[in-house]
Amino acid sequence: MRLSRYFLPVLKETPAEAQIVSHRLMLRAGMIKQSSAGIYSWLPLGYRVLKRIEQIVHEEQQRVGHIPMLMPTLQSVDLWRESGRYDAFGDEMLRFTDRQDREMLYGPTNEELITDIVRSNVGSYKQLPLTLYHIQWKFRDEMRPRFGVMRGREFLMKDGYNFDLTREDALHAYNRHLVSYLRTYERMGLQAIPMRADPGAMGGDDTHEFLVLADTGESEVFYDSEVTDITLGQRDIDYDDVDQCAAVMEEFTARYARTDETHDEAIFADVPEERRRSARGIEVGQIFYFGTKYSDALGATVQGPDGKPTALHMGSHGIGVSRLLGAIIEASHDDKGIIWPEGVTPFHVGIVNLKQGDAATDSACEGILNAVEAEGLTALYDDRKDRAGAKFATMDLIGLPWRITVGPRGLGNGVVELTSRRTGESEEMSAEAAIARVKEIYAAHM
Amino acid sequence: MRLSRYFLPVLKETPAEAQIVSHRLMLRAGMIKQSSAGIYSWLPLGYRVLKRIEQIVHEEQQRVGHIPMLMPTLQSVDLWRESGRYDAFGDEMLRFTDRQDREMLYGPTNEELITDIVRSNVGSYKQLPLTLYHIQWKFRDEMRPRFGVMRGREFLMKDGYNFDLTREDALHAYNRHLVSYLRTYERMGLQAIPMRADPGAMGGDDTHEFLVLADTGESEVFYDSEVTDITLGQRDIDYDDVDQCAAVMEEFTARYARTDETHDEAIFADVPEERRRSARGIEVGQIFYFGTKYSDALGATVQGPDGKPTALHMGSHGIGVSRLLGAIIEASHDDKGIIWPEGVTPFHVGIVNLKQGDAATDSACEGILNAVEAEGLTALYDDRKDRAGAKFATMDLIGLPWRITVGPRGLGNGVVELTSRRTGESEEMSAEAAIARVKEIYAAHM
Repeated sequence: MRLSRYFLPVLKETPAEAQIVSHRLMLRAGMIKQSSAGIYSWLPLGYRVLKRIEQIVHEEQQRVGHIPMLMPTLQSVDLWRESGRYDAFGDEMLRFTDRQDREMLYGPTNEELITDIVRSNVGSYKQLPLTLYHIQWKFRDEMRPRFGVMRGREFLMKDGYNFDLTREDALHAYNRHLVSYLRTYERMGLQAIPMRADPGAMGGDDTHEFLVLADTGESEVFYDSEVTDITLGQRDIDYDDVDQCAAVMEEFTARYARTDETHDEAIFADVPEERRRSARGIEVGQIFYFGTKYSDALGATVQGPDGKPTALHMGSHGIGVSRLLGAIIEASHDDKGIIWPEGVTPFHVGIVNLKQGDAATDSACEGILNAVEAEGLTALYDDRKDRAGAKFATMDLIGLPWRITVGPRGLGNGVVELTSRRTGESEEMSAEAAIARVKEIYAAHM
Repeated sequence: MRLSRYFLPVLKETPAEAQIVSHRLMLRAGMIKQSSAGIYSWLPLGYRVLKRIEQIVHEEQQRVGHIPMLMPTLQSVDLWRESGRYDAFGDEMLRFTDRQDREMLYGPTNEELITDIVRSNVGSYKQLPLTLYHIQWKFRDEMRPRFGVMRGREFLMKDGYNFDLTREDALHAYNRHLVSYLRTYERMGLQAIPMRADPGAMGGDDTHEFLVLADTGESEVFYDSEVTDITLGQRDIDYDDVDQCAAVMEEFTARYARTDETHDEAIFADVPEERRRSARGIEVGQIFYFGTKYSDALGATVQGPDGKPTALHMGSHGIGVSRLLGAIIEASHDDKGIIWPEGVTPFHVGIVNLKQGDAATDSACEGILNAVEAEGLTALYDDRKDRAGAKFATMDLIGLPWRITVGPRGLGNGVVELTSRRTGESEEMSAEAAIARVKEIYAAHM
């Protein structure tokens, strides 16, 4: 992509309304524009990252056999009355009537709707297990929307729902989701720590939140420092293996890690003092097992192996897709701007032309652009007639992890410069070698 | 994908509420489920087709250099008051207040929002031309939602907006969109005829609708039969070439083709009688050039080459993404069910196992499934213990264009059967040859 043909409205000034760094950087990098309180347009660069995150979530969900579908944004209130949650949800649920005075709402979550779909279409235990998910816009009418997409009102979320015959099967689904989520976040360059949480309005017994440590987090968290030493890495996981998933679950949740909602000083005191940590965290996901709460309320049963009607065991599982952009930036930036992890970067590499209009330099840049795209990677080529300093500042601000700099002097020696955004280190090499290096780096993130 | 692990709730009975064939077939094939009047959940099979159509629209938009982004579903009323359209739109616009009594609406279209983004961020003619688009859910509160997704209330639409310095540039954008839309529809297996239309509430001078001929279409259309003889095919188009785009535009719109809104008997009478046709049509897209209507109302100007503020010339361009599923089925089905065009099929090929549980047959089917997926294609493998007749009926209903049938007798002779859904013709060949044939067929649709 040539920057001269793109729409990247970077801002020189930091907008006054932005209180936290991710909000400031997303505005400055031309990723979002607020259209009304807590509601944003995703400008082209922001949209690209949103799609990358969505894609990773889809891939990891489908890797474990969950089935994608899509429920609408607007719902009738009827099912919510049936489940008893219509009154339980407060003013955060956006309610209104349509032209025929039917009561409607903008879905904040979808337990009722999905349970209705399953109760209408699944009659036998033989059709289980079943996990359906979607990625759809939600609305929560926050009293004080703030922090940009971190606490917006219209937000994109992946929510999934498992339907199982027994508690044991549903607990395997719970563990499978936990493991799958760990991999999902790691692919985005994030360490998200599962912490025992409070079920709140969702109901149910078991629930873990996934928290990314960051100074700007909305939650206070308490944990054993050993939890930050564990990663899933490249382990080979069989997601149908009940014991393996349970073992990973145990490994990641055995040590103390809780949010302020469930924090217990007496238990925390058992953690050796030098390993006791308190910090701030950003919630980027949550998983629930709630047994037959919804299937009882909505009459979702199947014929069991004994021929008798059996209530479905359910859980639900959410990832805050749009909020993740904020969380990633909070966890990965410096004074100059964003530093995208390779897994979610909007473009794989930036190309900076130091002497726009110089035929040889222009031609070398275009050759690199074409070669990168021929490899199935994406590049943003700054082909504007602008000072080198301004071009570097834009690239640093928007945070592409790798930059290839091309100038007449280097070309005279047969080299370009490959620079890491994270370390700032540059290395001279031939254009071919730079492209090969970039290809190699991303091969590990595909 | 194994059908035993999928969620495909096909219906034996035709639901009483469905009046037209596409609605009946989408319900019967387990593609959608109504959640409230004119609002649908997209079950896994329907979701797959929706994504295919979305993907084609994205590819064709980006092929011509249009830039993807995403605007929110909910909007403040302020910009609509500024443009003067708040009152012009009637009860079809869903309006409500949030918890702070701010007036909001569910966007039926996005001229105001995108013009606001551009006026805030584009200051110079050097940043033009610019075409931005998104694919997002819209809401129109139809008095009588009907025909399933063909006339639903919550619907998915691609809407794009061009911003140009001059009328000439904007007319090129108009022509470029027309050509790009022709290719988009052809990739979906549709002939969509551009017809001179009425601007309606959008305003503006030039507008064409794209209509698919079908008995159940909501519009009456009148045309010269020669218009159905023209296709874009595999022509090499340079979308930056003003003259070439204008020539294609001329070629496709020179002959008489109008909807009842703009039909003129006097002009139609000039068409030779044997070529005069009237029929029903389904509108699947529309393009507009409306000059400076919105940029004047909203003050969207740039500094022109002469240094003076110049109002932007604009157009908008829509494709009814969710409605296209209905239109495609109306145009492509038979008594047994849907017949998906190769470009939009939810799975490239179906695999039917005639003797589930027979080790050799099961193994052959699994081998074919793996081989198809290794080619980057998708297959739906009916691995249920069910009669062959029931499996064929399901495959015919859901309409995959190609089916591979595997049974012990054929395997004894080293063959499987490859069947075309469209013609019903079958051919015996080795499994390898069948996979190679399927690969070859789809290579032409990638």
